[in-house]
Amino acid sequence: MKAISIGIAGLGTVAQGVLTLLAANRSLIEQRSGVSVDVVRVASRSVRPDVDLQGADFSTDVMDLLSDSRIDLIVELIGGETLAKQLIVGALSNGKAVVTANKAVIALYGNELSRQALRFEAAVAGAIPIIHALQQGLVANRFTAVSGIINGTCNYMLSAMEEEGVGFDEILERAQTLGYAEADPTFDVDGIDAAHKLTILMALAFGTQFEFAKVYVEGIRAITLTDISYAAELGYRIKHLGILRSNPDGIEARVHPTLVPHGELVAHVNGVLNAVQVVSDAAGKTLFSGPGAGGAATASAVVADIVGTALNADQIVADPVANMSKVILPVEQISSAYYLRIPTRDEPGVFAEVTQILSSHNINIEAVIQKDGHDHGGFVDIVILTQETPEARMNEALAQLEALATVTAPVMRIRVAPQD
Amino acid sequence: MKAISIGIAGLGTVAQGVLTLLAANRSLIEQRSGVSVDVVRVASRSVRPDVDLQGADFSTDVMDLLSDSRIDLIVELIGGETLAKQLIVGALSNGKAVVTANKAVIALYGNELSRQALRFEAAVAGAIPIIHALQQGLVANRFTAVSGIINGTCNYMLSAMEEEGVGFDEILERAQTLGYAEADPTFDVDGIDAAHKLTILMALAFGTQFEFAKVYVEGIRAITLTDISYAAELGYRIKHLGILRSNPDGIEARVHPTLVPHGELVAHVNGVLNAVQVVSDAAGKTLFSGPGAGGAATASAVVADIVGTALNADQIVADPVANMSKVILPVEQISSAYYLRIPTRDEPGVFAEVTQILSSHNINIEAVIQKDGHDHGGFVDIVILTQETPEARMNEALAQLEALATVTAPVMRIRVAPQD
Repeated sequence: MKAISIGIAGLGTVAQGVLTLLAANRSLIEQRSGVSVDVVRVASRSVRPDVDLQGADFSTDVMDLLSDSRIDLIVELIGGETLAKQLIVGALSNGKAVVTANKAVIALYGNELSRQALRFEAAVAGAIPIIHALQQGLVANRFTAVSGIINGTCNYMLSAMEEEGVGFDEILERAQTLGYAEADPTFDVDGIDAAHKLTILMALAFGTQFEFAKVYVEGIRAITLTDISYAAELGYRIKHLGILRSNPDGIEARVHPTLVPHGELVAHVNGVLNAVQVVSDAAGKTLFSGPGAGGAATASAVVADIVGTALNADQIVADPVANMSKVILPVEQISSAYYLRIPTRDEPGVFAEVTQILSSHNINIEAVIQKDGHDHGGFVDIVILTQETPEARMNEALAQLEALATVTAPVMRIRVAPQD
Repeated sequence: MKAISIGIAGLGTVAQGVLTLLAANRSLIEQRSGVSVDVVRVASRSVRPDVDLQGADFSTDVMDLLSDSRIDLIVELIGGETLAKQLIVGALSNGKAVVTANKAVIALYGNELSRQALRFEAAVAGAIPIIHALQQGLVANRFTAVSGIINGTCNYMLSAMEEEGVGFDEILERAQTLGYAEADPTFDVDGIDAAHKLTILMALAFGTQFEFAKVYVEGIRAITLTDISYAAELGYRIKHLGILRSNPDGIEARVHPTLVPHGELVAHVNGVLNAVQVVSDAAGKTLFSGPGAGGAATASAVVADIVGTALNADQIVADPVANMSKVILPVEQISSAYYLRIPTRDEPGVFAEVTQILSSHNINIEAVIQKDGHDHGGFVDIVILTQETPEARMNEALAQLEALATVTAPVMRIRVAPQD
């Protein structure tokens, strides 16, 4: 039996999940892996009297974990950026291993941290062992695309909007009541949380640095029931995706609402679930789905990393991968098919004006929906699905479209999922 | 850099895939994992002149691999049972590690083999790193159910039957032409291949012995377009599933056609793909999908196991797990909801006779479809979806139903997927 002594920083939902899981499945984990995990100290600003620390010492200062010489590994679950980063740096420089669920710290400061003794499976897609898959199960593969639903709040909201026909504001309120969204939902609905996770996936799958600032980010606030319904009519669901793709010029890294065809498995991942699709040269298209958040689900990933450290399973660092461009492309350099919803006055000649502008930019039309405008006060949406077009060219066309006197509001533009 | 010298037994599709993958991604694998894989000998009864052995020595006798002292690890890809088993046993007793894709040998003889130096990720679900997931990513979890589509041939056939409305025989012929089914399709369409894989999953997830003989097996030969269409009307797809579940009395282990509700992700896994769903106490419901066969996809799993051996990543053997019943239940001891298609004469009173028999066995009806029989020569199907019922009780009811003078042919009975 190998023994590992750990200290846990934080006592929120995930930390409590870790304590509960280690207690409930102690003998199972020992028999299965030959590893015995001993929690020797827990540190948190405060402790609720109903939390069972299972005999561990308690400190109110997380830095106490650094000086506890019994501790082999610190589990960082305090969240936030400054103190968490300080704790992780301190632990690594004190020769302690670190397991963290902190996506922000890894995405923003990963380049400064030594990766040898640092594991962060729980930082991406909760219970889904996607980092294990990229580094071990798919180790022989050259990845060409990694994409998916990596924010459960956005997926819950978009799924509920489609299933129930209820608008963004009302669903956001419900998501907050259910605990799926924070009081300040910015990190989730504006795509920042997804971009943190995508930054981590990019470093692991494509061997880049952690380049959060280079990820293009768009959230879901602008998505309306009208768009969801037009998309359905065209055979698509709107999902909030993080997308990584290697193309001949570099790596695309973008987070945005995306039209996903009904034929794709990802289109059927609904509710708070996450799903990551990996496209690679040997394994082809694989998909990994499961709960992306929650105390027990995240604890599952944290404990896997603790056991992995104890087993001294050589971690694959996925560092510089040769023969692969590390250029991260600005979004203007991608190409995509696009969904455009163009709000217009219902006047003769408008459709011709719109299609003329697209045509003059060599943008081909794949499908069109134009409903009768009589019931909408003389206004009508022209909905167009384009073929693949360079984003820069689409931007020029959009500027011209919005300058038309007959176009009454900004054009809603949603990218279509790449056909990988 | 850690170096590992391997010998490959066999030169079929998968072996060629391994050679190709190792050559194509050599530097990527080395940089990512720090492992250099050297193929020193390939053995096969014959070699096609167009296969590039990449400088390896060649033998026509696979047993030559045992006596080649340079070889650290033998990759067994000859298939079959007798010689393959002999080779694996010989390698392990000579202190060589073994990686195999041979599900039959593991399922049938796994109990006799030492597991310490034996890896077989490629034996279950091809490219999908499901064994890695069970043993590492989900190591902290108690598994309550593991189920899924583990035979791509059956899934291709059932998907094509539903999508195209083409019958079993014609689709089988096409599957054979496309190389998705063997000339003798028994192993696939009668469920034996799936049962081999389920046996392996059971040992890993539930810590049982390899108990192939205790897996209940039913194939897809009896499935008709009529059943697929009734199932669709009821909100289900028919999938050929392997199902493992722990229930208070023991472990259910069964392979059979299954009605899967449209709301489940597994229902949307179509074509030759595989998908394994894992339900566990901490991670909840996770799903892993991807190509279940093919040279490159299987090679991806084989090379992952080679690298894992070289890294000496302590393998989790998932042996006796305490507090868990190891009893494998005969199918008569499961409970399930059932789809019943009862071919009857279209006479007054038949429906009452049928429902009376079900009622007298305390079998509750969830839904009924009964079409007008006038166009079918006085014969009509009564289709019934039952609530959960013990299998033994259902068997008694079926015997009574089939004894009715108005029931004109055997009742088609398909189990409904458990609601996990």
